[in-house]
Amino acid sequence: MILCGGSATDLPAMTPALARDFNVIDSFDTHANIPAHFAAVDAAAAQSGHIALISIGWDPGLFSVNRLYASAVLPEGKDYTFWGKGVSQGHSDAVRRIPGVLDARQYTIPVPEALDRVRSGEAPELTTRQKHTRYCYVVAEEGADLEAIEQTIKTMPNYFADYDTTVEFITAEQMRQDHAGLPHGGNVIRSGITGWNGESHQTIEYKLTLDSNPQFTASVLVACARAATRMRGRGITGCQTIFDIAPADLTALSREDILAHML
Amino acid sequence: MILCGGSATDLPAMTPALARDFNVIDSFDTHANIPAHFAAVDAAAAQSGHIALISIGWDPGLFSVNRLYASAVLPEGKDYTFWGKGVSQGHSDAVRRIPGVLDARQYTIPVPEALDRVRSGEAPELTTRQKHTRYCYVVAEEGADLEAIEQTIKTMPNYFADYDTTVEFITAEQMRQDHAGLPHGGNVIRSGITGWNGESHQTIEYKLTLDSNPQFTASVLVACARAATRMRGRGITGCQTIFDIAPADLTALSREDILAHML
Repeated sequence: MILCGGSATDLPAMTPALARDFNVIDSFDTHANIPAHFAAVDAAAAQSGHIALISIGWDPGLFSVNRLYASAVLPEGKDYTFWGKGVSQGHSDAVRRIPGVLDARQYTIPVPEALDRVRSGEAPELTTRQKHTRYCYVVAEEGADLEAIEQTIKTMPNYFADYDTTVEFITAEQMRQDHAGLPHGGNVIRSGITGWNGESHQTIEYKLTLDSNPQFTASVLVACARAATRMRGRGITGCQTIFDIAPADLTALSREDILAHML
Repeated sequence: MILCGGSATDLPAMTPALARDFNVIDSFDTHANIPAHFAAVDAAAAQSGHIALISIGWDPGLFSVNRLYASAVLPEGKDYTFWGKGVSQGHSDAVRRIPGVLDARQYTIPVPEALDRVRSGEAPELTTRQKHTRYCYVVAEEGADLEAIEQTIKTMPNYFADYDTTVEFITAEQMRQDHAGLPHGGNVIRSGITGWNGESHQTIEYKLTLDSNPQFTASVLVACARAATRMRGRGITGCQTIFDIAPADLTALSREDILAHML
């Protein structure tokens, strides 16, 4: 079962519950709560003899895998992840669940100066706030307390509290006209050094440019569901992550094809 | 054992021979001969109960893994791999083995127009020759037949025959002064589409910018050697590739750390 609920309240309950009866895969994306989610899902899946893949998508997901490969290959270095400019579904969903909110769209925007400094090889120390800003377009119910909604958004832990966030209230019509698409993207960059005296600078960059974030996330979930089926077939149970998937298990191509044409 | 021989003549003999007595890892990079190398190494390693990882580095290696992830996630799309501008060790090594050659450095150079067309999302059909040119600086023995050397280079199958190749003879002194470094890099790009009507364009790009190709290749070999040891510890034997390595096996960090900080 591919579970498509939200991370704020759906998946923490749904994934462990459904892992008792099914092999499951979710896109849980509240980074700070992943260890707790892993433990809850692992207990359910291990006991029932199912496989449960959590936090599958692009971040967490493909970005995580790229952080892991890059840090394993370049142990001396610094990781940088930039998101956007794009609509974050998890953050939009979190805003939509606030009482009085009818609809919301949250754009994550990299701070241009920060991206420039990282690409220059300077390896700067950057706080969460220095890297991105967040911009929320919100359609509120008639008569809702707009100031209370704005405060709830700006102080929401994990989602908005650590960022400079701007909240703009718009009409449902403006939302339909100007914010119908769900583009996104971002960059994972590792800036590392090698050599006896750290004399060689090595940079690994992974970049996504997505017209549709949900279609891309769904594409990652489907590929990983294929891997989950194969892993369960080899007797693997319990909670697993994208770190545990051998890339060969993701593809529909034959072993002969990937050795001859992709390696 | 990390085997650091060349792909032209060393590794095809060394890797199967040493896999009879040791767990081994090599960086065999003659793409067209990978299936045959895999079969020879697999026979030796499976029989002796060792693990043998072949074709580890960045291409084949990290670039291969990125081609696999990208094509699994975006089954409708096109792959593009560009190398350089940089010195290819395998190609330089192949030239150095030609009788009469004292030293050689081969630069691979992407054709700028090709890279522009791919990044535009046009998804063009490009031949090997349209994507890259190759440039060889060669120091010849005194009295060597320069024309014969140039012909041998330009007609070498797998290495040069399919490219527009330029050969320039220089002195040993010029080689020392102008071509001491071994920089390299490149891009793996998948340009794909998703949606009911293929309406969303999705681009995945992986980019390496390397001051030192051999130091980076060694870094990949070391991380994968760690994975090989762990995989052998779980009873896995025979020939394996980077496609078979679960990313979690590459890192020196604890499972708790990667769940909390990288996922």
